[in-house]
Amino acid sequence: MQKPSLPKGTRDFSPEMMAKRNFIFDTIKTVFQKFGFQPIETPALENLSVLMGKYGEEGDQLLFKILNSGDFLGNIPTDNLSQGYKKFTLDIAEKGLKYDLTVPFARYVVMHRHEIVFPFKRYQIQPVWRGDRPQKGRYREFYQCDADVIGTDSLLCEAEIVLMIHEVFENLQLSDFTLKINNRKILSGIAETVGAAGKEADLAIAIDKLDKIGQENVAKELLERGFSEIQVQKLNPIFNISGSFEEKIMALTHVFQDSAIGKKGLAELQTMLDLLGGFGLESKHLEFDISLARGLSYYTGAIFEVKANHVSIGSITGGGRYDNLTGSFGLPGISGVGISFGVDRIYDVMEELALFPEQTFASTQIMLATFDEKTFRFALSVLKKLRENNIRAEIFAESAQIKKQLNYANARRIPMVAVIGETEIQTGEMTVKDMLTGTQELMTLENLINLLKSNS
Amino acid sequence: MQKPSLPKGTRDFSPEMMAKRNFIFDTIKTVFQKFGFQPIETPALENLSVLMGKYGEEGDQLLFKILNSGDFLGNIPTDNLSQGYKKFTLDIAEKGLKYDLTVPFARYVVMHRHEIVFPFKRYQIQPVWRGDRPQKGRYREFYQCDADVIGTDSLLCEAEIVLMIHEVFENLQLSDFTLKINNRKILSGIAETVGAAGKEADLAIAIDKLDKIGQENVAKELLERGFSEIQVQKLNPIFNISGSFEEKIMALTHVFQDSAIGKKGLAELQTMLDLLGGFGLESKHLEFDISLARGLSYYTGAIFEVKANHVSIGSITGGGRYDNLTGSFGLPGISGVGISFGVDRIYDVMEELALFPEQTFASTQIMLATFDEKTFRFALSVLKKLRENNIRAEIFAESAQIKKQLNYANARRIPMVAVIGETEIQTGEMTVKDMLTGTQELMTLENLINLLKSNS
Repeated sequence: MQKPSLPKGTRDFSPEMMAKRNFIFDTIKTVFQKFGFQPIETPALENLSVLMGKYGEEGDQLLFKILNSGDFLGNIPTDNLSQGYKKFTLDIAEKGLKYDLTVPFARYVVMHRHEIVFPFKRYQIQPVWRGDRPQKGRYREFYQCDADVIGTDSLLCEAEIVLMIHEVFENLQLSDFTLKINNRKILSGIAETVGAAGKEADLAIAIDKLDKIGQENVAKELLERGFSEIQVQKLNPIFNISGSFEEKIMALTHVFQDSAIGKKGLAELQTMLDLLGGFGLESKHLEFDISLARGLSYYTGAIFEVKANHVSIGSITGGGRYDNLTGSFGLPGISGVGISFGVDRIYDVMEELALFPEQTFASTQIMLATFDEKTFRFALSVLKKLRENNIRAEIFAESAQIKKQLNYANARRIPMVAVIGETEIQTGEMTVKDMLTGTQELMTLENLINLLKSNS
Repeated sequence: MQKPSLPKGTRDFSPEMMAKRNFIFDTIKTVFQKFGFQPIETPALENLSVLMGKYGEEGDQLLFKILNSGDFLGNIPTDNLSQGYKKFTLDIAEKGLKYDLTVPFARYVVMHRHEIVFPFKRYQIQPVWRGDRPQKGRYREFYQCDADVIGTDSLLCEAEIVLMIHEVFENLQLSDFTLKINNRKILSGIAETVGAAGKEADLAIAIDKLDKIGQENVAKELLERGFSEIQVQKLNPIFNISGSFEEKIMALTHVFQDSAIGKKGLAELQTMLDLLGGFGLESKHLEFDISLARGLSYYTGAIFEVKANHVSIGSITGGGRYDNLTGSFGLPGISGVGISFGVDRIYDVMEELALFPEQTFASTQIMLATFDEKTFRFALSVLKKLRENNIRAEIFAESAQIKKQLNYANARRIPMVAVIGETEIQTGEMTVKDMLTGTQELMTLENLINLLKSNS
């Protein structure tokens, strides 16, 4: 006899958790659709040739790899084993589990490019897998909710992403959030301005840590990454630029007098703001964060990140513009911009702040309780009529004391029970009990149906 | 440069396919909920200790196994390799992908038994993975849609499964189907009657093939499986029992004079029929198939199978009652009954018979087309108001000829386009074009909103 367990970093979802998760999924999905995005799905399994090399060396390590079917050792020279596990892995595993939705989407676009209508606005809500060390807010199997527009560089897409983020979090009632915005071209401009053009990747990685390790340690890291003392000194006042969105743009305009790419980044930001004005957005959530870098190297324009204020769980949403996502699959020069909602973290935040509305748990509306074989048989016709009216209804399936039947309804959080006895068969009226208040009243089936239809 | 590909037996789903698949999922989900079932989800990853040994030796082979993270070769004695790949697999892989939803559900019930309210009615809609050879109607990654009631042996559950099957296929308009029913106890009774008690497993496997290989070859197989000539001769008239549901029950009542278990099977079947009568079901789809066996060894009572008539794709739905599913996880004696809808095959059948309704493809309702920067900016406020009214709306994001914008809407199958020009800004009326009929008319925003709201 074996005691069953779950793999580290994975979870079961109970009906109650499912209801809450579906509330989040449905909210996001509705917003995506409202903005014209269409769903696609890709398999969990991808060829490792598609996945490897796309997430850096660490990512390659964290990919879950699937052992080849059958005698996977069959044709492998025995001395391949001595080359170490990394090389051996490629001998015995051709497939892996997807690590995010972006690389499979790029593969999808390339493989289906002749049937896709560009600009292609797609959303995708699926699990991904990473062999990370599990910790708070980090799972080995978790969902991503992505929306991307690919095949246009119109900054309207960036503006609409900002709108969608606002609408999603407002509809979730998760209204205490900050949406940080920056632009990779601004980071490039900064690198250029301090005389370190081409080193924006190092700059990005270092200043991404500003929040966590502070300015002094970032300076140290920059020196280690080959920036000179003078360059680091020039960076200091830029990091310290403060004030409103517009004040920061003004200050950077001054900084970027000699940087074309920096000016371009500012202009893109400004255009996006203007478009948001055209939509009438007035937001207290938007913040221009010059130190926002986001780790992924493929971003080339706007970058976004959402944090829940006063909850320490990292970013709950992020995204940005990329210019060459499909290049590695042989389709260069396609620009796109996307956003990814981290549903599992959003769930944790909403749980911590008790933000889930009570009515997310919409299960069975009414249960029928009966006394004996005869009333049970009569109740089947009642059940049939309820369901014909699209009412979610069930009957206690075994013969049991009424008290036991009511206890079951209570434990299941079924809000209403109709008790059907001999009298009910004769009069056609049932005793309908409100399980929350405990009150009960006599009701015809017709009235009961009308009541339940108006409730749902 | 690499040409991307998908693993064998896996598929991408385009927006159009997603719409059709969601039509099936939503139909099934709605019926499950109407009958009081609640959703759960379990991870794709399970420990192999949970999965192995549950699906027979062939199943163990078909499980997809995940290579352990990090240096999986690290601690393994090198001569383990010479023990062959099957043993070596367990050295380097602890996890696998789930093979069905039933075993993970049994694990779930055992691990969560203290929080579950029994009888537990759960549904689960998730992908599963099998290293089978891909062919028509058989994929390596496919969805199962399962509903099970666990913790009661009430035959009402069987009756409700029959009702749910009817309602699902009627709602899908897939009305040309046969629902075959049998009971494992009847098979046991037959084995007992011909003097082969205890050999119902062999009997089941052999007669399961009656459809495919014919009675003569089944007789041959039974002889190979150790049945005597006399036993096989006694079986012949039983296989040839024909007539209506009731006539078959009558004939078997005669056969089972000395078989308690056979009588019990018939009584269960009769009770289920009586309950269906209580629900008022009159069905032309129901068939009592004495040769229906279903492969899985864990069934102990009623068994179900649905086939689409005139489409050669195997069964599209199946299930049955089991008495000891959680026994191997240390929780014996819990009875349950379940049904599994094969969504991928149902999809293929509906595609083959052209049964998908046109309106499953509910995407963007209206696109805005504009002439220049000024009309584009004006259109943003129109777009905002449309979306505020929960209308799925988008705007062509780049500056382009109106013709190109209309072509895009057409290719995307967006049914309506509002063209916004200088005149529209001044008069407040837009030219609204019906993309199906080609007709157009002038309309205020308010009228447009009312029209779109009444359409959706």
